[in-house]
Amino acid sequence: MAEFNIDKEENFSEWFDEILKKAELVDKRYPVKGFVAHRPNAEYIEDKIQEMLEHKLKETGHRKARFPNAIPESILQKEADHIEGFEPEVFWITKGGKKDLPERLGLTPTSETVMYTMYSKWITSYRDLPYKIYQRCPVWRHETKHTRPLLRDREFEWIESHDAFKTREEAEEQVEEDIEIAQQVITEKLGVPFHYFKRPEWDKFSGAVHTFGADAFMPDGRFLQIPSTHLLGKNFSKAFNVTYEDRDGEEKQVWQTCFGPAVGRIFAAYIATHGDEKGLRLTWETAPTQAVIVPILHGENKEIEQTAKEVKKTLEDKNIRVELDDSEATPGEKFNHWEMMGAPIRIEIGENEVEEEKLTIKRRDTGEREEIDKKELEQYIEEIPEKIRKELRKQAQEKFKGNIENAETVKEVKEIVEQGKIARANWCSIDKDGKKCADILTSETAGAKVRGTIHHKEEEAKGKCIVCGEEAKEVVYIGKEY
Amino acid sequence: MAEFNIDKEENFSEWFDEILKKAELVDKRYPVKGFVAHRPNAEYIEDKIQEMLEHKLKETGHRKARFPNAIPESILQKEADHIEGFEPEVFWITKGGKKDLPERLGLTPTSETVMYTMYSKWITSYRDLPYKIYQRCPVWRHETKHTRPLLRDREFEWIESHDAFKTREEAEEQVEEDIEIAQQVITEKLGVPFHYFKRPEWDKFSGAVHTFGADAFMPDGRFLQIPSTHLLGKNFSKAFNVTYEDRDGEEKQVWQTCFGPAVGRIFAAYIATHGDEKGLRLTWETAPTQAVIVPILHGENKEIEQTAKEVKKTLEDKNIRVELDDSEATPGEKFNHWEMMGAPIRIEIGENEVEEEKLTIKRRDTGEREEIDKKELEQYIEEIPEKIRKELRKQAQEKFKGNIENAETVKEVKEIVEQGKIARANWCSIDKDGKKCADILTSETAGAKVRGTIHHKEEEAKGKCIVCGEEAKEVVYIGKEY
Repeated sequence: MAEFNIDKEENFSEWFDEILKKAELVDKRYPVKGFVAHRPNAEYIEDKIQEMLEHKLKETGHRKARFPNAIPESILQKEADHIEGFEPEVFWITKGGKKDLPERLGLTPTSETVMYTMYSKWITSYRDLPYKIYQRCPVWRHETKHTRPLLRDREFEWIESHDAFKTREEAEEQVEEDIEIAQQVITEKLGVPFHYFKRPEWDKFSGAVHTFGADAFMPDGRFLQIPSTHLLGKNFSKAFNVTYEDRDGEEKQVWQTCFGPAVGRIFAAYIATHGDEKGLRLTWETAPTQAVIVPILHGENKEIEQTAKEVKKTLEDKNIRVELDDSEATPGEKFNHWEMMGAPIRIEIGENEVEEEKLTIKRRDTGEREEIDKKELEQYIEEIPEKIRKELRKQAQEKFKGNIENAETVKEVKEIVEQGKIARANWCSIDKDGKKCADILTSETAGAKVRGTIHHKEEEAKGKCIVCGEEAKEVVYIGKEY
Repeated sequence: MAEFNIDKEENFSEWFDEILKKAELVDKRYPVKGFVAHRPNAEYIEDKIQEMLEHKLKETGHRKARFPNAIPESILQKEADHIEGFEPEVFWITKGGKKDLPERLGLTPTSETVMYTMYSKWITSYRDLPYKIYQRCPVWRHETKHTRPLLRDREFEWIESHDAFKTREEAEEQVEEDIEIAQQVITEKLGVPFHYFKRPEWDKFSGAVHTFGADAFMPDGRFLQIPSTHLLGKNFSKAFNVTYEDRDGEEKQVWQTCFGPAVGRIFAAYIATHGDEKGLRLTWETAPTQAVIVPILHGENKEIEQTAKEVKKTLEDKNIRVELDDSEATPGEKFNHWEMMGAPIRIEIGENEVEEEKLTIKRRDTGEREEIDKKELEQYIEEIPEKIRKELRKQAQEKFKGNIENAETVKEVKEIVEQGKIARANWCSIDKDGKKCADILTSETAGAKVRGTIHHKEEEAKGKCIVCGEEAKEVVYIGKEY
């Protein structure tokens, strides 16, 4: 294992690239721009994240289905705003074998048009509502911006849930439920804090009434949208004729929402939030290897080897994912390797440990060494998952909090953003009218964007919009984005 | 629920279409030929099948990864036989947004060329071997034959495992392990019997040294290949330069195998093997609803309702997927509905049951009613999964066995195949030389194909090839195929 030791805050871009390589996570050397290979270490963690999301979706009454990954052009065009937003990014399939297809097919950049084509057949009565379905699938977007593994790929996997309701109120409640799911998985379980913004009118999902985006904040001072959830209103149910016969016999359009947690981006935020100059730091639940045992040998020592095997057996019997590293590497090399891989605990067993019937445990989350009696191991293992989760979350939240500064002028926004922080400012409006000011701001700050108002935080704007000087109606948050 | 009552053996094609519709499994009304939507009932069962396969793959040392779903044309062309076999079936992506792509991309019809591009970077030393990885992904094939949901789609999901070894012996052992996995999941767990054929030289996977295919036998007398496994030899490791440095310092090519269980086809065979004129029959493990409780009410009856709720609670506490059907439908309608859905057991609770503290249980696998003491329920539930699995498997195996008849002439093959059976015949050779005879056979029997020799069954051919009259070297099995 070569040296790592890149400072995450100083040089995030290089740090991120290196950790993807050294922890054998994602390989960008596949010869198609924006299409990457997820190695087993990455897929393991991403699968765990998927499972957590799927678990919550099932708990909240969603059923899993699977839909085609290609859309005839005529269907993609049915909702006018939607096609306008996505058309520049669609990969088109035009041939099957040597034949031209009768109609070209877009690879799904998102699945509204595919799913609602079927919903119009499946939803018939008020008894079918609410209708809550999700799928796990790849999506493709021909991004024109610089691609970066996990952060911006042209092909990625996500979960998308699409729900239909009788009333706007129910749809709005669903948006809240989606936010709650994101909170429970991404912040509670994975320890990644985020802001939940209501996006300005000019930055919403193509075809939505409102968009709410969860933004993690990366070590280089950029927002990374992880999931977003959309109140679609009746825009799609009109275009796709998704209707139900109500109790009163009338045919009515459904209210719709959709929610799209992109697992690769959540994973990227997870790596970036907890990783350090030694490599990955992982929660117990997501770690491919939860505990690694390193025998500290000076030459051969049967007792140490025997103890190491016993400890391994004890852990295996408790279904712990444990590795006994008895390779030829030195203990130091082993320490480096497993710290890079993010194994949550390392159990060191040397002469002292055998003699005193103790175990030395190095925690990856705190970096501290703890000594326990060997017979306390099972108890220790029961308590450690929760401790690690809390510790990682606490560290992340502390860093996350101090990042916001008030800005009175565009110049101040620029300074704050250049320091890698979030600017908070008075703003005329997040309706369409505010777009002029947003464009000015972005061009004068080398790319800073209005991310929106914090959802549910009733912040009273006192003063003038920092761009146009009109009476401010909103308090918005501004920063660079991925 | 409309009447079903189509005889599976008499009219399999209609039966299969109807069950996909009525049990809300797969919807072919999506407006792209061969691209279908998998409704929640189907996805649930397919997910369970996937999990069983993944479990076995992990148990046998495979790790899960994820690879791009698109291949640059130049890479697809690297292995000559492979591109020749697959080129007619590739869907081509030619545009991103409005721009032509610099090189057109094929949607993966199978992932050898994608994965081995990366393996050539990831495998470096003898220490990396054996190298065993699988992925779960969609694949696309522009089939020119008639498409049918699950049986032949243009887009489907599968698992593919790709393994690399130092020696041919290890690779051959892997083929055996793959067969074993298929056996354990498809036959043992799902109760679907199959033959494992070594395919003739002219019917092997494009790029393979040998192909072994597992063929289920459908009620209309056609073979359905479910998984296949391939000994790839060094064909791909040469083309993709997948090499390792051996102990002796020499750079050597790996031996490779791959294995591709297509979940949709396994699911189709599963539906077809166990389903009957009333609908699906499912094993306990795969059933979305394992037990349904139907109260038999004549007007209101608090005691019955109370007992039904208690029974539901008892089952939920044991993590059983249970439904209490208290809808407004009649008991008869409920019976029909849940038989269609394949719920393994139905618990009927009426006045008698309440009075005598009994439960009447109707089993979907045997069609028999059983009466048990209410307090025996937990015991009953512990034993029933295994009983159902064995019963379904037994019924399927009995039907499967009597299907083979010996044929002495091509005419006899035609007669046997027309009766929906499998013909067993002497054959000159399954090497390239035998292809002439196979072509003649197919044309004279309206499409019957030589599926191969039964792998590991050392059958001695005594006599002449039924087509050319030369000395027979093999005993082959012949039938129509999907």
